[in-house]
Amino acid sequence: MAAQQPTVFSPITFSKYSNRVLLKTLLDTTDGGLSFVGQKLVVGGWVKSSKEVIRDAPPAPAPADSLPPKLNKDVSCIEIIQSRIPIVRSLLKMLYGNNLHGGEKLDTPVHKPPLPSTAFLAINDGSCVASLQVVVESSLHHPTHLLPTGTCILVEGVLKQVPVPGKHVVRLEVEKILHVGKVEQEKYPLSQKKLPMDFLRKFSYFRPRTTTVASVTRIRSALTFANHTFFQNNSFLYVQLPTITTTDSEGFSEKFHVTTLAGKGKRVESTEDKEPDGLSLETVKAAITEKSNLVKELERSESNREALVAAVQDLKKTNELALQLEAREKSKSKSRKDKVIPGNFLPQETYLTVSGQLHLETYACALGNVYSCGPRFRADKIESAKHAAEMWMVEVEIAFAELKDAMNCADDLVKFLSKWVLEHCMDDMKFVQKRIDKTSIHRLESIISCSFEKVSYTAAIEILEKATDQKSQHLKKLKFGAALTADHLSYLADTIFKKPVIVYNYPKETKPFNVRLNDDGKTVAAFDVVLPKGGVVISGSQKEERLDVLMTRMKEMGLPREQYEWYLEIQRHGTVKHSGFSLAFDRFVLFTTGLTDIKDVIPFPRSFGKVIN
Amino acid sequence: MAAQQPTVFSPITFSKYSNRVLLKTLLDTTDGGLSFVGQKLVVGGWVKSSKEVIRDAPPAPAPADSLPPKLNKDVSCIEIIQSRIPIVRSLLKMLYGNNLHGGEKLDTPVHKPPLPSTAFLAINDGSCVASLQVVVESSLHHPTHLLPTGTCILVEGVLKQVPVPGKHVVRLEVEKILHVGKVEQEKYPLSQKKLPMDFLRKFSYFRPRTTTVASVTRIRSALTFANHTFFQNNSFLYVQLPTITTTDSEGFSEKFHVTTLAGKGKRVESTEDKEPDGLSLETVKAAITEKSNLVKELERSESNREALVAAVQDLKKTNELALQLEAREKSKSKSRKDKVIPGNFLPQETYLTVSGQLHLETYACALGNVYSCGPRFRADKIESAKHAAEMWMVEVEIAFAELKDAMNCADDLVKFLSKWVLEHCMDDMKFVQKRIDKTSIHRLESIISCSFEKVSYTAAIEILEKATDQKSQHLKKLKFGAALTADHLSYLADTIFKKPVIVYNYPKETKPFNVRLNDDGKTVAAFDVVLPKGGVVISGSQKEERLDVLMTRMKEMGLPREQYEWYLEIQRHGTVKHSGFSLAFDRFVLFTTGLTDIKDVIPFPRSFGKVIN
Repeated sequence: MAAQQPTVFSPITFSKYSNRVLLKTLLDTTDGGLSFVGQKLVVGGWVKSSKEVIRDAPPAPAPADSLPPKLNKDVSCIEIIQSRIPIVRSLLKMLYGNNLHGGEKLDTPVHKPPLPSTAFLAINDGSCVASLQVVVESSLHHPTHLLPTGTCILVEGVLKQVPVPGKHVVRLEVEKILHVGKVEQEKYPLSQKKLPMDFLRKFSYFRPRTTTVASVTRIRSALTFANHTFFQNNSFLYVQLPTITTTDSEGFSEKFHVTTLAGKGKRVESTEDKEPDGLSLETVKAAITEKSNLVKELERSESNREALVAAVQDLKKTNELALQLEAREKSKSKSRKDKVIPGNFLPQETYLTVSGQLHLETYACALGNVYSCGPRFRADKIESAKHAAEMWMVEVEIAFAELKDAMNCADDLVKFLSKWVLEHCMDDMKFVQKRIDKTSIHRLESIISCSFEKVSYTAAIEILEKATDQKSQHLKKLKFGAALTADHLSYLADTIFKKPVIVYNYPKETKPFNVRLNDDGKTVAAFDVVLPKGGVVISGSQKEERLDVLMTRMKEMGLPREQYEWYLEIQRHGTVKHSGFSLAFDRFVLFTTGLTDIKDVIPFPRSFGKVIN
Repeated sequence: MAAQQPTVFSPITFSKYSNRVLLKTLLDTTDGGLSFVGQKLVVGGWVKSSKEVIRDAPPAPAPADSLPPKLNKDVSCIEIIQSRIPIVRSLLKMLYGNNLHGGEKLDTPVHKPPLPSTAFLAINDGSCVASLQVVVESSLHHPTHLLPTGTCILVEGVLKQVPVPGKHVVRLEVEKILHVGKVEQEKYPLSQKKLPMDFLRKFSYFRPRTTTVASVTRIRSALTFANHTFFQNNSFLYVQLPTITTTDSEGFSEKFHVTTLAGKGKRVESTEDKEPDGLSLETVKAAITEKSNLVKELERSESNREALVAAVQDLKKTNELALQLEAREKSKSKSRKDKVIPGNFLPQETYLTVSGQLHLETYACALGNVYSCGPRFRADKIESAKHAAEMWMVEVEIAFAELKDAMNCADDLVKFLSKWVLEHCMDDMKFVQKRIDKTSIHRLESIISCSFEKVSYTAAIEILEKATDQKSQHLKKLKFGAALTADHLSYLADTIFKKPVIVYNYPKETKPFNVRLNDDGKTVAAFDVVLPKGGVVISGSQKEERLDVLMTRMKEMGLPREQYEWYLEIQRHGTVKHSGFSLAFDRFVLFTTGLTDIKDVIPFPRSFGKVIN
């Protein structure tokens, strides 16, 4: 009995939480979706490109329950470029009316009803690079509302094999329109094709609809999960670190203030008001001379804003310190009570965190292997393609670990991430390779297979000195103690070794107070991982676990001890060797995709002077 | 030949990035580590508890290459409680000298060398709940430096079966001390046992060394990974949303200002200066009357600070709006240019994000299924066990999805997370059950197996009205339009249904502007998921995709349109139905662990008026 009844197709939905099939379910298959041919499906997405094919003769009225008439590929037709539809369409109507097309007289009325046509829409739903061709007869929906790029549709139809397989092997022949989200084409910023990346930055809320930013987003998402997978597989615990902080390990950056008092006209005191501990004015003045020289040197080299900004900040802080010390000599009346900020949400002055380093260390010194990912902030007023005010960092800290352990972990992580992207995002990487950077897949492959070159800072200086003698005149000569600029480091990876390089054991002046002092008394156990064409993506170090050495370093650098008292407690009670690093996540995405501006890989970038959404 | 040579044990290291075996590798096994007996291992960790056993007679000097002498369990011995070691040890020496112990004369010199003894240390490295017993002879290291709680040790030794298996079946007999990180016992805040949670909050940098906070951290870490796994398995893309923002969907909370101008004495303008669009003073004054009544009602009920604060804020905003409108009527000279803040890092006034909602929607309306996790901020000056200024939210948005789809996704997520914790953190959950909440495992199990009760707001009001008639006199009577307090919602889950409840279709006044208006014109498609003993952990909604309806809602609520212009663009071009929700991640951890204060599950909590590290 049941066999005699007509087969009732109910549309298949493979997406669990929306009434549609994700396109990747159909198209990310070895046969390109052929195995689904004949099935009734619901799909949704946004129109990427479209064309309208107008038939010479109107189709015979279709019976209510039959499929829409198939497009006869042999009839004479006009393909309309979507980006000019309204104009072209009206022009066309005039032309048709004037019988300029093929010499045949049309028996369709020109103005009402409209010319019967078929809309061919390439739609994408963000689940994969590929688009699906969707075919809609004009009898179902007015083509003008479907054709503009960016139009959103949800449609039900039957998947068919395309008559002449090309880019697509299947297409959906639509039977029912479930939703149309129109586009005001003249006002839609993505109506044009191939828009430059810097134009798209003004439309951070629209740009994921472009193929490039969609691919970047998928790669970014995969890399986030790869990060978690790597650390969870290696028995690391994830720790959420605070965004609102009072202290940081760096001291090299400008910070954003966080307050509930802004707009109330009250003055918020700055940390610079804090009194440093046990420093003489003489020591500080000597430091000023030394630091001024470094700034001058960096200004001459002109190659690295990052190092220069750091040096200028450092000098500025030392100058302020000197002023404070002078003031203190005049009046020692200030008590710590003065620092409490009345009326504010928190009683202290607070900032957006520059680094989760110190907080993460306290968890490593209790739980062993820990990691974190979160936004970190710098308010340095520079415009740069490698910096944004808000960047995500993956921070790692390992107890009972020395410098080499952290280096090995960083090495493994970079390889794991590279491999993951090739395994999980190959279609996106192929797109990236085609459109952005021809070497992107090759670069990841070579990272996976090579062993990272390890060079001490001292050896790096020697190598760079020789190299600058020979060919790279733009790289200034270096002597021990100088900060290596991003250009220097990239030169090592790009030109000298042509593979990832780890530079380690830096002069202590160039690194934060809590990096472990080496036995030579001059260098500290810090390292940087530099990727060819990627620059520095990881910075790490072994931390100072010896309380006395740590306190001496803090004095040398003029840090206010009371602010770090809680951090010193970790070294005072149950101290342990520990090492770690931080990965500039956004820079790794930049490296992976081959894009050149960090603002193009961050969903909603925040950078100096730019209006944000 | 090889067989005749003595076996050379080289210490096994199973931890990839530190020179030691993670304790969970040994102890999280079905045999409790027996399969590793006889192996030479390096382990590290912090002393959780200890005792010293002093022998009557000094051991015969051990040959250099032999194992240390085993403790003879039969000899008369004195166990010393670690927390009073220094005093007890000196007392003991005096007692020994006075021959008060067992009547036997000691032939060991009392003061030098010290009495030979064996230290039994339970150490933990954070990788699992269980501790390992480590046995150190006093000939290897002075026990006084090993015994205090919190001491860090790295030791090499041979794993042995314990003579009388109890809590432990294996222990490490130490041959070499590789590191000792001492504790200044009098100053170490964790020297005492069983410290109350609120005491520990003052030491956020030390408390992961306690078993409770360590377990919470492991559960939290597992839940973070479970979240990512759930969404990645279901083809969701992860999107990092910005922390620094200008807009938010809520408007119900106080915000933190972000600025680089604080301390420079300049006035930062507040958003309240912005001019609302197209509102009459009359409308606003009517709204003030209505909102004042709501505040009065909530004040009477005293049950829910959250709702009250929201209502007060709302009223405050409306009042400010009225003042602005009055001012505007006097002078219409202000231009938009005035809002630009000269000298600031960003040219607009910026805040810490309250919700990533709006930004996430733009990605859903391009890529389909998206999610995010990150810190979100509220500066409401309230002290609460359920709120912190900085909380992590998991935000989800699904294109082509309606309210029911988002509810189903939320339901699946809660079940997935609950199951994951039981599968991956059973030892921690057993500890939690023993120490914190006897019902915690049962609660997770029942969530996995039950179907969530779905109740409309209107039905919930009716149910609560009947219930309040009968037994719960403390729950005030409700009528349509009233905000459901946390107490009301919990009553539904805890008492009425005794399982998770989803309440949906709220009065439009109680939800943000972008929640989709239902056909009745009164309610909106919002929902909350309430867990028994967990309260509201998820809030979600279908978003308004109809541009005209959205703009009307914004006008009704007096929102400044120019601030949301970018958001409206999404509905203007290629709009689509979309739905989502946000999970208060910290509250879910609170629910899982059975703890009562949110500050105990956040690594470094930030809350009103509290000094932070």
